[in-house]
Amino acid sequence: MSVAQHPTSTTELFAPLQPPTRYLFGPGPTMVDPRVYQALSKPIVGHLDPYFIQVMQDVQELLKAPYGITAGSTLVISGTGSAGMEAAVANFVEPGAKLAIFANGYFSDRLTEMAKRQGANVVRFEKAWGETFTDAEVAEFIHREKPQVVGYVQAETSTGALQSGNAICAAAHEAGALVIGDCVTSLGGVPVEFDKTGIDIAYSCSQKGLSCPPGLSPLAISPRAMDWLRARTSPVRSWYLDLKLIHDYSTVSHRYHHTAPISMFFALREALLVIAEEGIENRWERHRRCHKLFVREIEAMGLGMHVPAAHRIPTLNTVLVPNGVDEPKVRKRLLEGPGIEIAGGFGPLAGKIFRVGLMGPLATEENVQFFLVEFKKALNAEGYAG
Amino acid sequence: MSVAQHPTSTTELFAPLQPPTRYLFGPGPTMVDPRVYQALSKPIVGHLDPYFIQVMQDVQELLKAPYGITAGSTLVISGTGSAGMEAAVANFVEPGAKLAIFANGYFSDRLTEMAKRQGANVVRFEKAWGETFTDAEVAEFIHREKPQVVGYVQAETSTGALQSGNAICAAAHEAGALVIGDCVTSLGGVPVEFDKTGIDIAYSCSQKGLSCPPGLSPLAISPRAMDWLRARTSPVRSWYLDLKLIHDYSTVSHRYHHTAPISMFFALREALLVIAEEGIENRWERHRRCHKLFVREIEAMGLGMHVPAAHRIPTLNTVLVPNGVDEPKVRKRLLEGPGIEIAGGFGPLAGKIFRVGLMGPLATEENVQFFLVEFKKALNAEGYAG
Repeated sequence: MSVAQHPTSTTELFAPLQPPTRYLFGPGPTMVDPRVYQALSKPIVGHLDPYFIQVMQDVQELLKAPYGITAGSTLVISGTGSAGMEAAVANFVEPGAKLAIFANGYFSDRLTEMAKRQGANVVRFEKAWGETFTDAEVAEFIHREKPQVVGYVQAETSTGALQSGNAICAAAHEAGALVIGDCVTSLGGVPVEFDKTGIDIAYSCSQKGLSCPPGLSPLAISPRAMDWLRARTSPVRSWYLDLKLIHDYSTVSHRYHHTAPISMFFALREALLVIAEEGIENRWERHRRCHKLFVREIEAMGLGMHVPAAHRIPTLNTVLVPNGVDEPKVRKRLLEGPGIEIAGGFGPLAGKIFRVGLMGPLATEENVQFFLVEFKKALNAEGYAG
Repeated sequence: MSVAQHPTSTTELFAPLQPPTRYLFGPGPTMVDPRVYQALSKPIVGHLDPYFIQVMQDVQELLKAPYGITAGSTLVISGTGSAGMEAAVANFVEPGAKLAIFANGYFSDRLTEMAKRQGANVVRFEKAWGETFTDAEVAEFIHREKPQVVGYVQAETSTGALQSGNAICAAAHEAGALVIGDCVTSLGGVPVEFDKTGIDIAYSCSQKGLSCPPGLSPLAISPRAMDWLRARTSPVRSWYLDLKLIHDYSTVSHRYHHTAPISMFFALREALLVIAEEGIENRWERHRRCHKLFVREIEAMGLGMHVPAAHRIPTLNTVLVPNGVDEPKVRKRLLEGPGIEIAGGFGPLAGKIFRVGLMGPLATEENVQFFLVEFKKALNAEGYAG
């Protein structure tokens, strides 16, 4: 065979793939265990292969402990966390239905935006970014609004605030409403307590507490929500995210729906095995311990946290930017120097907070200390005297 | 640290991940070059990291030759091929708009279903699965129906038929309509000729002609379609698939939209480099040559093809099941013996055809012969005397 010359010499234009080494101390993606990368690169099988069907079932089973779900179903969406959010809204909020949202950060705003696009009647209880809702407040709001669905964000990535769902779910169920809980930043690093809290539909992502690369969105669905979905007669506007069809493919008939991202499922299975082998309770405790160490050291540096102590997400720390320090410059210095990625605030918190994730493989005392040394250096270089 | 025992011993319940070796001769996913698996397992960087932004841009650039697009835009959806189909429909078919679909297989039916769920007024020109539409037929249909959007499937995976888009695009543009072209099975293995044909919106997948694992959907959009989208005032019902937002993230401002599947983008970049290094014309020719060899040998075995010679997809061969042979049994024998995956027909073609993919690394004379030997053995074992 004669090989014709390609018009442009591709090897000249595109360097070999060689990503720089990064320490992912941001809100996600987080670091990934080498075992997970090995699983990711195993030669694939077909999406209807008996082996792959078993992998999907293993993933569903392994998700139960992190979610804290027993009787309900777990399911994985072939998209990122935002696809999971859209699946929750598209399947459980019918056009015209009333959705009550507890809005205290970027992701409750995103939920609002998605719900409006799906034709929902959205009512919002708004608080400043970083604040949380008390039991009395949520009960009053839900009893007054009588929504069909309630949405809240358990761990708000944009602010670092953790919202208890107990009172929300209790009030919602009294009002006959289903509850959608955003668990994108909590799953795998923080107890979700799906059953205990009474959440009906939860969605998350693969790249935060589960420490897998991004690309999949694990869902949990209560028996009550599944019954509701089975009884729904209006078509779900999204075919790709139609949970009845996806549930059927992954759990019941294994009839073709879409070609699932095989490699990502291999990786997620391995990430969940890593978690199961550590033990989910041990993992949560490890994250809590690192969080406490982090806060103690941050305060010893004269810095403050954005969220009150009782409502902090252990895996995502929001540190107040000290007066006179230019937040993007600190991040740039960390990325270009030691290769550390953290995030800044956005929206009303732009320039005001650093967002520091301590998740998965990075949640060790040694890594916390490594980070703090570099963080202090970068802050000092940008004029912070503490 | 004391390590508590996990309630169930996970290592006993879940065997280490060890996928069986499969030769993927089905309609996709196809085999993947080892270089692509290496890229897939490179340690990730963040989704807003300058390195990742560059990877996204490289991917967009490298998609241009397979698509045959110059002035328009390429874009990648963080979902599978079906997510790309839904993105095309949700963004370019407004609720109430008239969509004319050329329906001759499963994927035009899926397009119909998605469009109906998005509130479109769908009109269909239906033919039997495996047939194609003539220039005169498409022109007459479009001139009569005067749709706002036209949809057709270039390479219909369920039947093996290749549909020319030239007359469809010419008539659609005369009528002022945009054209959506399903290129899921064509991209990378068959010339799409996006510009030359006049397609306005094309979507595909990563796991067929591009020989990457599944999980991403590359799109191509003409300048005319991009102008139309920019002028659209009604909100796109899907936030996750909103192409204005995705285009902005990946190409313009790089502002956060969702956390892109980093590893999958690494893999797709490598798969596209493999293609660029071979040369896209060489690649197409290699697939054509293997297809011709395959058909010649299949006919020498006394078997027939489902689609007339002039309209066959070179990368996806549909072979008629000989009388008296039980199609699923042949497939089971191939999978459980040599580990060869092929597909059967479904819908009106259930039990009537085998679907044999010859794509990417498998499209060599040697592999075709390897397949044919095993295929003949399996057919003979199931009673075929040829």
